[in-house]
Amino acid sequence: MGIELKQQGSKLQGLSALRAQYEPQIPPALKGGNVKVSKGDNTTAADPSDRLAVSRAYPHTYGQPLVHLVSEDKAAKHSTLRIGVAFCGRQSPGGHNVITGLFDALKSQNADSVLIGFVGGTEGIFAQKTVELTNDHLKDFRNQGGYDLLGRTKDQIKSSQQVNDAKAACEALKLDALVLIGGTGTNTDAAQLAESFLESGCTTKVIGVPVTIDGDLKNQFVETDVGFDTTCKVYSQLISNICTDALSAEKYYYFIRLMGRQASHVSLECALQSQANMVLLGEEVANSKMTLFDVTMQICDAIQARGEQGKNHGVVLLPEGLIESIPEFYALLQEINGLLKQDEDIDVNNISSRLTPWAAALYDFLPIFIKKQLLLDRESDGSVQLSQIETEKLLAQLVDTEMTRRTKAGLYKGKKFNAICHFFGYQARGSLPSNFDCNYAYTLGQTAYYLAQAGLTGYLATVANLKQDVSEWRCGGAPLTAMMSVKRWLRGPGVSQIGKPAVHRTKVDLKGKPYELLTQKASSWLMDDLYRNPGPIQYAGAGADLKTITLLAEDNDYIGKVQELCAYLDKVKEIVKPGCPGEVLKAALCSMASVTEILTVMSAPSFRGRTPF
Amino acid sequence: MGIELKQQGSKLQGLSALRAQYEPQIPPALKGGNVKVSKGDNTTAADPSDRLAVSRAYPHTYGQPLVHLVSEDKAAKHSTLRIGVAFCGRQSPGGHNVITGLFDALKSQNADSVLIGFVGGTEGIFAQKTVELTNDHLKDFRNQGGYDLLGRTKDQIKSSQQVNDAKAACEALKLDALVLIGGTGTNTDAAQLAESFLESGCTTKVIGVPVTIDGDLKNQFVETDVGFDTTCKVYSQLISNICTDALSAEKYYYFIRLMGRQASHVSLECALQSQANMVLLGEEVANSKMTLFDVTMQICDAIQARGEQGKNHGVVLLPEGLIESIPEFYALLQEINGLLKQDEDIDVNNISSRLTPWAAALYDFLPIFIKKQLLLDRESDGSVQLSQIETEKLLAQLVDTEMTRRTKAGLYKGKKFNAICHFFGYQARGSLPSNFDCNYAYTLGQTAYYLAQAGLTGYLATVANLKQDVSEWRCGGAPLTAMMSVKRWLRGPGVSQIGKPAVHRTKVDLKGKPYELLTQKASSWLMDDLYRNPGPIQYAGAGADLKTITLLAEDNDYIGKVQELCAYLDKVKEIVKPGCPGEVLKAALCSMASVTEILTVMSAPSFRGRTPF
Repeated sequence: MGIELKQQGSKLQGLSALRAQYEPQIPPALKGGNVKVSKGDNTTAADPSDRLAVSRAYPHTYGQPLVHLVSEDKAAKHSTLRIGVAFCGRQSPGGHNVITGLFDALKSQNADSVLIGFVGGTEGIFAQKTVELTNDHLKDFRNQGGYDLLGRTKDQIKSSQQVNDAKAACEALKLDALVLIGGTGTNTDAAQLAESFLESGCTTKVIGVPVTIDGDLKNQFVETDVGFDTTCKVYSQLISNICTDALSAEKYYYFIRLMGRQASHVSLECALQSQANMVLLGEEVANSKMTLFDVTMQICDAIQARGEQGKNHGVVLLPEGLIESIPEFYALLQEINGLLKQDEDIDVNNISSRLTPWAAALYDFLPIFIKKQLLLDRESDGSVQLSQIETEKLLAQLVDTEMTRRTKAGLYKGKKFNAICHFFGYQARGSLPSNFDCNYAYTLGQTAYYLAQAGLTGYLATVANLKQDVSEWRCGGAPLTAMMSVKRWLRGPGVSQIGKPAVHRTKVDLKGKPYELLTQKASSWLMDDLYRNPGPIQYAGAGADLKTITLLAEDNDYIGKVQELCAYLDKVKEIVKPGCPGEVLKAALCSMASVTEILTVMSAPSFRGRTPF
Repeated sequence: MGIELKQQGSKLQGLSALRAQYEPQIPPALKGGNVKVSKGDNTTAADPSDRLAVSRAYPHTYGQPLVHLVSEDKAAKHSTLRIGVAFCGRQSPGGHNVITGLFDALKSQNADSVLIGFVGGTEGIFAQKTVELTNDHLKDFRNQGGYDLLGRTKDQIKSSQQVNDAKAACEALKLDALVLIGGTGTNTDAAQLAESFLESGCTTKVIGVPVTIDGDLKNQFVETDVGFDTTCKVYSQLISNICTDALSAEKYYYFIRLMGRQASHVSLECALQSQANMVLLGEEVANSKMTLFDVTMQICDAIQARGEQGKNHGVVLLPEGLIESIPEFYALLQEINGLLKQDEDIDVNNISSRLTPWAAALYDFLPIFIKKQLLLDRESDGSVQLSQIETEKLLAQLVDTEMTRRTKAGLYKGKKFNAICHFFGYQARGSLPSNFDCNYAYTLGQTAYYLAQAGLTGYLATVANLKQDVSEWRCGGAPLTAMMSVKRWLRGPGVSQIGKPAVHRTKVDLKGKPYELLTQKASSWLMDDLYRNPGPIQYAGAGADLKTITLLAEDNDYIGKVQELCAYLDKVKEIVKPGCPGEVLKAALCSMASVTEILTVMSAPSFRGRTPF
């Protein structure tokens, strides 16, 4: 069913109109338009203990090779392709540019090729609500925020009915490829569709593109996600404004909860950008098994220490996932999730008796607004609606109670604690994307086209070496199965012990460079108000091409290193060619035996530490 | 007591550092540094019926002339001056530039002149907490947001004890002038200090500068306030992001409350910038005497009409002052204010019995969170803490109830109403100021210096013709008494019937051009989602010098028109010089008699309409 796209009634104005004229930068490999997809080594799942499970679940798509895009001298005429595209995850700045990049590459290679947009995301796929995209549709959406070109609905293609509907759509529309735009959930779906389509003889290829503000689709192949850069910059601007406000009025503590789902990448980046007084990363709390009481005391101790220096203001950042990271809350939420699955008749009044005594004790202790929020409808993936749980208000209230107690007991002599709470979420998702996100998304869109054109399926479009200039970016594709793992340690009634293989959200690495930057500075930022204001996103002039601190700090370019290693191996082969001196061969043999031994030990399942989240 | 300024520990980084290097633009009159203060006509109070009251309360400062700054050819050496400066109002982007402008003008005229900053605003004045400002202090605060150079405390210099403390400070510090930075309250205080100082023989002159995000210190002499431009731009960026989000997900209604105190200028500007679906201006609601029920129904009718077009999303803007504009709320708040003044033992449980039956009925109807918020401590001027009253949640809840009722009654067939509530306040006040605010504030700071240097007191520094390029701006000063009026119609127990003369907040003019722009477009914006995204504030490139729509739409330049009128009068005199033909004299006489008659009627107190707010 081809439908009319809703007209964006207004012509773009002002900065939006200017941005629509911006030409995204692309790396050299894509520039000439003569692009070859070159195959590299075959892949495996990162964790050896998951390899069997992943290969069994994905027999057709497991183990495919990495691929790289390289420019070719000779032009090859591309055959006519029909490609479908849908926004499956949540709004993330830059999403539109994936589509414009895909469109421009497709049309530049063959003007008869067709890009079909699914209107309303996954539900648009199931219902075959489509529109054939033209330059006219796209012109007002180039470099613009939001997903309003096509809209979106739910995040999941999960049931076999939905998989069948998607297949029927691809077949009815004669799609050569389907490109799905989203985060971990969407890309797990993409892998599942690719596998099912191969299994059932459907010829449509499936390609995923990493787009999520949460920044948690992150692994050896993916350095960051489209939208993370913009969103963190918008939040950081606001946090910094509030830091300045706090320092000017010197009477409030601001508790700011930040969007970002279960992982705390957004909060970490915003802390590094704004240098706010305190950030409580979910990963830290989970790792040190801090209770709600511990978290409260940690904040109170900080307020007391600042009070002793005459400082009665401050800014505390909280990731929305914090609440799930507090062990007793995690347990409570798992129990509630289980009960909600079994029975819809749960409410604030009757739930306590159905919980374990430990969970019930915590639930009964909570203020009524949190009690209600914990029982709200679940997300489509069954998880809690983190955006709706006002953790910042809960903590502000607990801290207030404790500071009052300390004051009465004569332990705290500073001014009365005054909190102002904020949740920064929706006000960044629709932002005009930064130059970085415009370029990255557009490059990914073009890359997705070339992967589809090469007949690959079950791949994620990737761009490596992002912290360097665009001229050094490297485009390619990585099999989604190579990013999969299997979650264990799920708990609570109604939850299975071992999950299916999936592309999971990557948490903040507590051994990583960005977190190290934070811990080095945390105590001076806490006490000395070294606030930093990155200001609003700039599109021209100095600062317009700044990247996130997280991206710049991280030791990325996994693929570059794989290539470097291959060069070493080739060099060894070259040196020890038959005819080489015996002692050289002996030295090579001895060294390689040692390397192999070390790597074997390091790669054994028992060697690898794991955390329950 | 000279004190050490707290060190801003961090050197500025990134965009903040770049901004510190920005050189604000100033109009030609200030450029050479040879500036003359030229006196114009004497002034009067705008409303004839207030003239007697104002002239009695301000016998020494009433009726002073307008003054204009003009550049002179010859340089005059300025004597050494000691000037004090304080942030008295709330944080507003650009406040620091008033100080840097003042400092640069003062030092350029005489390097021995001294600028003394009061640390902690009004309380710093009373306690004589001072710091002699140097270029070293200022360099990290040039073109930066916040008030953290000096900080601030309360908004008021009110009691005679406080006036005496301020006088003692000015005398002890041998100040030639005191410059107060703030909005209507601060500038009423400035007028009061100027009058009291003259009365008691204190030689310190007092100059005010119009700085408030609320944009409500606005009259014939003041076209806009420092900070309004930046704040509206930050809010509009976020509102537009949310509009984009709403249009992408198509499932939420966003209720966004905006800071701006009793007047709705901020909400009006943000509505014009973002073209959100709906804005409820306090002035409209008050003018049409809409009840809480009416407001709720108006929103519900809009949601229903949109639902019938298949639209289940939208963005509704609410000024924080809305609640005071609803007549029954206004009456309730006045009663509560009266009770709080008389008796501190009021709480949620015992208040109903002390209210009139009408007020009690409304109070009892409200949800508990609003009940509590209505009883919070009052502002220093006795008004409600509007920032703490979650009107957006109250309305979302009432709308939800009504939409559920309509659904059950079969009147509404759209998707379930889902609201997400936001309050945008503190996240803009500390923003890096826009180029406009940097230039305007810096120009005002320089102007304040020249007014002080000319020995004027009880004046507000003004810059006219702001909608034109800086090269056409005109600097001057207007007596604060000329902006004063007397509020009548206060009500409730413990409130006097007639207030003192004061510089009052100017409400949105429902006959003005900006409001007309809104009403022309309101119905298409409501139904057609013509959202506009102005994007983040830019400092370089196209769009960096955009001004607010309000400023551009308004018919400003009152002072220019006064000058134009004077030119007409002079021309008439010129034409009818003795010796002119009799019929020319006769025509002039006849025309002037008619003009005079019309103006006399128009200026009579009975002619001027008044609203009770």
